[in-house]
Amino acid sequence: MEPLTIFTDLAAPAELLDGLRESIAPHRLLLPEGSGGSVLADLPTDPRMQEADIVLGQPQVDAVLSSPKLKWLQVSTAGYTRYDTPAFRTAVGEKGIPVTNSSRVYDDACAEHVLAFMLANARQLPQGLATRCPNGAEPWLKLRQDSRLLQGQSLFIAGYGSIAERLIDLLAPFKMAITAMRRTARGDEKVPVVSPEDSTGVMEDADHVVNILPDNAASANWFDGARFLRMKKGAIYYNIGRGTTTDQEALAEALNSGHLGAAWLDVTHPEPLPDDHVLWTCENCHITPHTAGGQGGETAVLIRHFLENLARYQAGQPLVNRVM
Amino acid sequence: MEPLTIFTDLAAPAELLDGLRESIAPHRLLLPEGSGGSVLADLPTDPRMQEADIVLGQPQVDAVLSSPKLKWLQVSTAGYTRYDTPAFRTAVGEKGIPVTNSSRVYDDACAEHVLAFMLANARQLPQGLATRCPNGAEPWLKLRQDSRLLQGQSLFIAGYGSIAERLIDLLAPFKMAITAMRRTARGDEKVPVVSPEDSTGVMEDADHVVNILPDNAASANWFDGARFLRMKKGAIYYNIGRGTTTDQEALAEALNSGHLGAAWLDVTHPEPLPDDHVLWTCENCHITPHTAGGQGGETAVLIRHFLENLARYQAGQPLVNRVM
Repeated sequence: MEPLTIFTDLAAPAELLDGLRESIAPHRLLLPEGSGGSVLADLPTDPRMQEADIVLGQPQVDAVLSSPKLKWLQVSTAGYTRYDTPAFRTAVGEKGIPVTNSSRVYDDACAEHVLAFMLANARQLPQGLATRCPNGAEPWLKLRQDSRLLQGQSLFIAGYGSIAERLIDLLAPFKMAITAMRRTARGDEKVPVVSPEDSTGVMEDADHVVNILPDNAASANWFDGARFLRMKKGAIYYNIGRGTTTDQEALAEALNSGHLGAAWLDVTHPEPLPDDHVLWTCENCHITPHTAGGQGGETAVLIRHFLENLARYQAGQPLVNRVM
Repeated sequence: MEPLTIFTDLAAPAELLDGLRESIAPHRLLLPEGSGGSVLADLPTDPRMQEADIVLGQPQVDAVLSSPKLKWLQVSTAGYTRYDTPAFRTAVGEKGIPVTNSSRVYDDACAEHVLAFMLANARQLPQGLATRCPNGAEPWLKLRQDSRLLQGQSLFIAGYGSIAERLIDLLAPFKMAITAMRRTARGDEKVPVVSPEDSTGVMEDADHVVNILPDNAASANWFDGARFLRMKKGAIYYNIGRGTTTDQEALAEALNSGHLGAAWLDVTHPEPLPDDHVLWTCENCHITPHTAGGQGGETAVLIRHFLENLARYQAGQPLVNRVM
C-alpha cells in the first residue's frame, strides 16, 4: 500500500500526536495549522484536510464532501449528528467512503455514568450528601424511606446500541426487568425489544426510563409532554443520548407536577442550559455537563481505537463502529 | 408449643404492628408503653420486656440479661455493638439464648449504597452536578479527565460478610480485582481473603478500599494514619461499617495532603459530626447520614425477616443471621 496521508484535528497533547505519528508510519500525519479544539466544537475545517486520504476527528460536512482524495472518515465522538443526513449518506455511499465513529471508546464510560445516575437516585445521594441530620430525625426517616433498591425494578431503554448492551451487562446482578426500543430489531438483542410504534405500553410500566437516542429527525423531541405523562407516576427519566430528543419544558412540567420522580441528564439543548432555564429550578432535576463519555486518558483511548481500525483498514477487514 | 410473649420496641406504624400481631397469633404481641423511637436510639427499655419470651428490637443490655423468661433475641439492625462484648456473649451462651440480627434486611441496600458511592466517585457526580461549565472549557476538560471507569480497577474490602458478598455479586460485570479481609477465613469466600495481619501489602495495591468492619474492640480506629499512608496514592476510601473504626483526624490529613483521592462515608463518630469537625472542610470527603441500609418499606421488610425466623424457631430450625 502506498503511504497515505492521515489528517486529524484531535485536541491531543503533543506527545500523543507524536506517538500517533510514529505508530502510523510510513503513513504521513497531517495536523491543522492551529491547535485542536474540543472534540465537540464546531470549528471551520483546516483547508489542508483536502490532501487527506483518511480523516480522524470532527471535520465539517462540506470539507468531507469536497475532499478529493478521502477514502475513510473516523469521527472522534460517539455522536455523528452533523453527518447523519440522507444527503451525506448518499454522497459518501456513492464515493465509497466508509464512515466510522468512536462509540467503542465511550460505551463503557457512558454505561457506568448512567448506572451511577440510577444508583445515586436510588440511594438519594444528592439529598443525603447535602444534609447533616441526626439518626432518627424526621429528614433522616424521610431519606431512608425515599431510598430504593434497584434490584427487581423495571427499566425501559430507548435506543438499543452498544451503550445499552453494556448497561444491560452491568445491570445483570440487579435482576431488573429490562425492555429496549430499537427502530429495527436484529434478533440478537440481549433483552426483549420493541419498535418505537409499539413502545407505549412497555414504557408506561417502567420504574426507570433511559434515553440513549441519537440526534436525528426522527428523535427530535421524541420525549414530549404526552410521553412523560404516560410514564408511570414516580418514574425516573435519564438522558445520556442527545439533548434535542427531549422537550425540556414538558420535562420540567412533569417534574414540577410530581408526575416524574426525578430526571438525571448528561445532555441538554443547548449545553449548558442558559442560567434562567426552568430545568435549573427543578429540585429533582440533576444535570452533569456532557461528561458521561469521559475518562482519564480518553484521547489515548481514542487514538488506540483509531490505530486498531487502521490495522483493519490496511488488512481489508471490516471496520469496527462503522455507521455508514 | 405454648403461646409465647413477643416484645418489640420497633418504631413501626400501627398498621404494621397490627399485621405483626395477626401474623404471630396465637403468640401474644407486647409493645412498650410509649411509641417506639429510632432503631438506633439508646432509650431505656420498657419494664414490661421482662415478661417476654422473644424480643425483636434494640433492648438495653441490662434488660436482656435480667430478663427471666427470654428465649431468643432478634436485634433489629445489622450492627449489634452494644451486645458484642465477652461478658454478654458468655451470659447469653450460659442461658442458651440465641441472638440474631437483621443484617439480611440491610445487605442489599448497603451493597447498592457503596456501589453508588463508587460510581458517583468514578463519574465525578458531585463535581459534575455542581457545575454549568460549557463543553470544551477548562473545568469541563478536567471533569472528563478526572472521570474513571470502575472496570478493571482493584478493590480491597475490609470485613467479609453478607454485605461484602452482595457487593462482590454486584461488581461481577466490572471485572475488578477484589481481595477481602476476614478474621478467620472459612474457605467458601467468593474472592481471595487475607487475615488482618496479612492485609497490608494487599491493601496497598488497591484503587478502592471499602470498610465494612463491625464496631468492636479489635476494629476501633483500625483505619489509622499509618494505614491511610500505606494506601496507594489517589486511593478512594469508603466506610459503610461503623464510624469508630476510622481515625477521622488522620483521614482528614490523608485527604488534605492529597494522598487519598477521596472518602465516601455513610458512618461517622459521632453521628452527625459536629459542625466544626475537620472532615466537613475536606472538599473530597462525601458523607451521607447513615442511610446506607435504608429503603422504602424497610420496617415491613424487618418484620418479614422476623416472621421468617420465628417460623424457623418454631420448627426448631437454625435461625438466619445468628450472631451468638
